[in-house]
Amino acid sequence: MRTISKQEENAMEAVKWGVVGTGHIAGNFAECMTYVSGARKTAVTGTSIGKARDFATRHGFDMSFSDFGEMLETARPDVVYIAVPNHLHFKLVMAALDAGVNVLCEKPMADNAFQLERMIAKAREQGVFLMEGMWTRFFPAVEKACEWINAGAIGRVRSVRAAFGLKAAPDWQMWKASAAASAGALRDVGVYSLAMAFLGFHETPESIASVYSLKNGADSHSELMLRYSGGRAAFLTGSFEIVTDSRAVFYGDDGLIILGDKFWCPNRAKLYAYDDADILSTTLTETLEDPYLSHGFQYEIAHVMECVLHGRKESSLYPLEESLKSVRLTDSLRKEWGVRYPSDV
Amino acid sequence: MRTISKQEENAMEAVKWGVVGTGHIAGNFAECMTYVSGARKTAVTGTSIGKARDFATRHGFDMSFSDFGEMLETARPDVVYIAVPNHLHFKLVMAALDAGVNVLCEKPMADNAFQLERMIAKAREQGVFLMEGMWTRFFPAVEKACEWINAGAIGRVRSVRAAFGLKAAPDWQMWKASAAASAGALRDVGVYSLAMAFLGFHETPESIASVYSLKNGADSHSELMLRYSGGRAAFLTGSFEIVTDSRAVFYGDDGLIILGDKFWCPNRAKLYAYDDADILSTTLTETLEDPYLSHGFQYEIAHVMECVLHGRKESSLYPLEESLKSVRLTDSLRKEWGVRYPSDV
Repeated sequence: MRTISKQEENAMEAVKWGVVGTGHIAGNFAECMTYVSGARKTAVTGTSIGKARDFATRHGFDMSFSDFGEMLETARPDVVYIAVPNHLHFKLVMAALDAGVNVLCEKPMADNAFQLERMIAKAREQGVFLMEGMWTRFFPAVEKACEWINAGAIGRVRSVRAAFGLKAAPDWQMWKASAAASAGALRDVGVYSLAMAFLGFHETPESIASVYSLKNGADSHSELMLRYSGGRAAFLTGSFEIVTDSRAVFYGDDGLIILGDKFWCPNRAKLYAYDDADILSTTLTETLEDPYLSHGFQYEIAHVMECVLHGRKESSLYPLEESLKSVRLTDSLRKEWGVRYPSDV
Repeated sequence: MRTISKQEENAMEAVKWGVVGTGHIAGNFAECMTYVSGARKTAVTGTSIGKARDFATRHGFDMSFSDFGEMLETARPDVVYIAVPNHLHFKLVMAALDAGVNVLCEKPMADNAFQLERMIAKAREQGVFLMEGMWTRFFPAVEKACEWINAGAIGRVRSVRAAFGLKAAPDWQMWKASAAASAGALRDVGVYSLAMAFLGFHETPESIASVYSLKNGADSHSELMLRYSGGRAAFLTGSFEIVTDSRAVFYGDDGLIILGDKFWCPNRAKLYAYDDADILSTTLTETLEDPYLSHGFQYEIAHVMECVLHGRKESSLYPLEESLKSVRLTDSLRKEWGVRYPSDV
């Protein structure tokens, strides 16, 4: 059972968090703050003061607001966590940066590269921390997989498979499937699959082949093959229409890594070597088990707090360049598919 | 435990088999003949009379030959099974057809579409049975999967995943990796993955994206994305360089099918429905378990014998059109990759 160690606890000073949004993900995030010492539940902003107060009561926040600017001024948080529908991110991120406040914004942080470039320029101008909430990157199982990959434990990476597919009921979180909310399956769940490809292959793919289905102007299902030089590839899926195997696999010349059960918030990483004695077999050589508490946001929360406390302007684990790589790729796919957002230029 | 039933046994008259080849696969095939009543081990042809005699003794064949024509004339088999390196298939198949003998030839039966079209024309001219040995098609688990797919048990098929990857030791069956023997990973193992795509999608793909690695003029690794209309796709692998998950998966609009443990000779088919109560869950609704005896060639053997006894000219389960579809696709990929065989025109 992974908890923050005594040593880490001592090192962790208090950081005042302001949460924006009172939905499902904001609630999970707030719950996980409980497991990070020094994470102060300072303030929450909701679409109404009633919703904000309910959330504050439920999760133990000190102050409630229905106006974001007022929260920034009154509560003076060290960092804000933005967890609202996609198309509302830009305005809130820019407002926080303008106020000189550090920002962690849910993925996908920006609707398009145009927005993201403006956010990054603003963060640099203001000298504050900005990060997209790709929480996956901070799970110990993912860190272990990266460590194995970078140490050459599976040799050269040849193939990455990651599929995040769910079967949405007709009434399931409608905004996530709507172009009006700058959403769709690729940017809601497919970006996690993309993040796996980026862990396996650091360069830009040579080309991308895709199939997709659209519903109400946004993609509800897509599958991608990212092609890299030297016979390397990634098979990726982001879907609201099929329930896929939730493990990600990295095949290398010498072995493979499996991240699971759910690769986007994995509790396990396994390293296998190809078996010399049998052309079809593999041997488990190392396992990391991490039956973490609650939802697992604590790893991201602790990382952001460490960055903020050290005055860093971006994360070394999930730098802004990584966000740019992702949004440029989703921009080009959306263009190909004809998925346009109101904020597209 | 699946065995041939009493009823089937009564129906099965004797069929005289002539086996060509004394290697690993021919041996497995001979072993499986034991489990099909009426399958007479009439004759075997080897590259030398010594090898043929050893094989005949080991597997209980009546006659041994080092000359194929002599076997046809002397032993008068009802059907020959050809299990020799790829580049030798054409000459032997044509000789058997010329002699008016029914033919089952190991996959890949022909080096290219040009050869296959000539084989098919010859078989029709002679009025004899011809089939490529895609043994996978005859396993009860595969038949069950086809039945589910065709009955709409998973709704419209959206995605197929099939990877046949093994890690070849440097000294592993060299001819299988050589262009001189009309071989390579795509045609040795990748064709099984292709066969899964063909079970899921009956039409020709709109386009194919691929990555590949070459060794000594033949492909040693490739991954393919077959794109079909309406956002449908197949992710396929054929490799001598990575050991992949050996299960094939068919995702549909309403559920999924898993074929395993090894999808090319599966002992199990499982049908799952997407779970209404949880967007990420599935419920197992039906399983076929088939812990078959020996290597599993008995299903193909029994099918071919039934065809021969009924005077059929081709299999309804694996018709020659299916072989043409496969070889046309591998022809076009080889052309793209620059993998040329001596017999290519």
